Amino acid sequence: MNIRPFRKLVSFPEAMELVLRHSAATGRTEEVPLGRAAGRVLAGEVVSRIDVPQFDRSAMDGYAVRSEDVVGAGELSPVSLGVSGELFAGDVPTVAVRNGTACRVATGAVLPEGADAVVMAEFASEEGGSVTLRRAEPRWGNVSRRGSDIRKGTAVLGAGAVLDPAKVGVLASLGLAPVEVLVRPGIAVISSGNEIAEPGGSLGPAQVYNSNSYALASVIDQNGGQARLFPHIEDTRDAIRDALRGALSGGLEAVAISGGSSVGERDLLAGVLADEGEILFHGVQIKPGKPFLLGRTGRLLVFGIPGYPAAALMVGQVFLAPAVRRMAGLPPERRTVRARLARRLASRLGRVQFLTVRLAGGEAEPVFKGSGAITSLAAADGYIVVPDNVELLERGEEVEVVLF
Amino acid sequence: MNIRPFRKLVSFPEAMELVLRHSAATGRTEEVPLGRAAGRVLAGEVVSRIDVPQFDRSAMDGYAVRSEDVVGAGELSPVSLGVSGELFAGDVPTVAVRNGTACRVATGAVLPEGADAVVMAEFASEEGGSVTLRRAEPRWGNVSRRGSDIRKGTAVLGAGAVLDPAKVGVLASLGLAPVEVLVRPGIAVISSGNEIAEPGGSLGPAQVYNSNSYALASVIDQNGGQARLFPHIEDTRDAIRDALRGALSGGLEAVAISGGSSVGERDLLAGVLADEGEILFHGVQIKPGKPFLLGRTGRLLVFGIPGYPAAALMVGQVFLAPAVRRMAGLPPERRTVRARLARRLASRLGRVQFLTVRLAGGEAEPVFKGSGAITSLAAADGYIVVPDNVELLERGEEVEVVLF
Repeated sequence: MNIRPFRKLVSFPEAMELVLRHSAATGRTEEVPLGRAAGRVLAGEVVSRIDVPQFDRSAMDGYAVRSEDVVGAGELSPVSLGVSGELFAGDVPTVAVRNGTACRVATGAVLPEGADAVVMAEFASEEGGSVTLRRAEPRWGNVSRRGSDIRKGTAVLGAGAVLDPAKVGVLASLGLAPVEVLVRPGIAVISSGNEIAEPGGSLGPAQVYNSNSYALASVIDQNGGQARLFPHIEDTRDAIRDALRGALSGGLEAVAISGGSSVGERDLLAGVLADEGEILFHGVQIKPGKPFLLGRTGRLLVFGIPGYPAAALMVGQVFLAPAVRRMAGLPPERRTVRARLARRLASRLGRVQFLTVRLAGGEAEPVFKGSGAITSLAAADGYIVVPDNVELLERGEEVEVVLF
Repeated sequence: MNIRPFRKLVSFPEAMELVLRHSAATGRTEEVPLGRAAGRVLAGEVVSRIDVPQFDRSAMDGYAVRSEDVVGAGELSPVSLGVSGELFAGDVPTVAVRNGTACRVATGAVLPEGADAVVMAEFASEEGGSVTLRRAEPRWGNVSRRGSDIRKGTAVLGAGAVLDPAKVGVLASLGLAPVEVLVRPGIAVISSGNEIAEPGGSLGPAQVYNSNSYALASVIDQNGGQARLFPHIEDTRDAIRDALRGALSGGLEAVAISGGSSVGERDLLAGVLADEGEILFHGVQIKPGKPFLLGRTGRLLVFGIPGYPAAALMVGQVFLAPAVRRMAGLPPERRTVRARLARRLASRLGRVQFLTVRLAGGEAEPVFKGSGAITSLAAADGYIVVPDNVELLERGEEVEVVLF
């Protein structure tokens, strides 16, 4: 077996910096219906094409009047006006309000011509075609003026805004549908290895199920990307080269290949990439995930992800997730909670260690059993990061848990 | 106008308790492919049908040996063994390891019959068909034993587990595909009002665009539900009754109708619901959102949501979101950050107030302009909750911001 050691490991911050530097936003845009716009990223600035409201609008149920007609009106000095009509929200006024008259209006109704205030219904008594008003209102009292909320031509949302429900509502209020958003970056997910079988099928005597493709696809989809599950491939130069070329011709942004990034004889990705593109780094001072490789071929960013499930997931969460968010135009996100360590932990100086933990009763309990262990993942709620200059974490020490 | 005051407002905690009590998990399940399982909720307990690993596996690149053959081996006392073959991950062994022989193995390879330890490659030198080993290994050294990670028959994930990428990976490792998950609750979204026009179309002289349907649909979709956008309806008893019956016959869990839950003459939902089902409460001591109504018709939970956009969104975030999460089997989630208030705020005793704020430089700046204002939403990153016994929040006071 031709064992080549990693030539030079990069530090965790160096690796992160290189990953982010090479993960540019795609810049491509597409239209989506408003009903599917939540969570997407606005492509351009949104300028209102209308005044909101687009007409003077009653802000209350009550009576639209000329304010000069109710000057001095009060409990002891009521004013009586003739009722000239009734308007609900959506009605187009046909009769104007003149001096001496009022128009019954519901909240949201267009303020009829001539009126410049609304007296609330609780200060009014209507009987036999006339209304007694016991309250004065200044000009534009209880009226939402045309354009008072948003004036036509105003920039309302900026390019790059993430469309939460409030912002989707804003776009709808402006009548803007469909919405121009950034395309979700397409990322091929490939597992390599002769031992791999697909879940749902049966398992040959020397085989293991492909779990990395599904875990990594989930990381990609949950961070604004669009995972494309490619069939798993054999550990041969040809298969790896063909897979990279396939992803490249598919117009994708990146490819995440798991397996084949260690230093054994069949770890061929680095070799293929040296011919087909470039290696940006190979090997990082972290555990698990040390064999992580970043490269490029054409416009395709290549994540060479270690094959062991716990290592693959950790590299996915630590490096791939922020890379995908950046390509998608999403802000970085680290959902964290603070907890006390349930037991003492030793680490090794000189490398950053990621340890999966389970949260229970405010405590973070390490569940890491090794890079190969599935049980490191099944019970894990997230992970803690042990810096490279820390040898020991005491029981009861407060740690920050990054949630999965 | 026949103005009926709200008969009895319920408190914020009473309203929340009633909303949650009536939002039961649907209990219905469906199968989804593993590649689409992220974020879904596991329907039942998952028991492994296999041992993981399913064979004794080499944990290192090296040489599989009988441990008794390398007892005492070291730098100064190397042991030479004949190399009987080579195994990579995925290869099915055809030759056993006998005393005096070793088999070259890669990480992940099946341990050949007869072998019970692996000596790491860095302690080995191979030449001309034999290998010199400079290290002893105890029995099962560098071997992952069959079932050591997960034993067949072990319960690995519990019913109700939310499938994060790690857990999707675990299911894949066990070969389990497709996955049985809880059905996402279907929730009809309907805007009522004669003034409503759909975004993307033109706006008549007394019309406003339908924003609530899209904001509420986003709230539902982002919390594990499946919004069904129904056409907006006129403010008539018949239209409302027909819409409720339509949602009921569509096998949906709930309906969110916005508009029509205030107390004006055309606020008909309460009347229809009194005939067709029951009103659980109508009116809450909150602002905005006071007219919020909760009711039932058959198995359909009815959210009567105020028509003003900022009020509709706030009721959506505060009540609808946790209700949907509960129906979906998802745990409650409140993403919050702490920030200092950018300016002094007055509130009114006796009601809980929700105030939209913008986050900038560690400060929370109120952007609430009124229930009707879209600009209350466009700039908002989240909201703060002012309790009903608080009259004043000072500038610089620390507040908890619930993020949208």
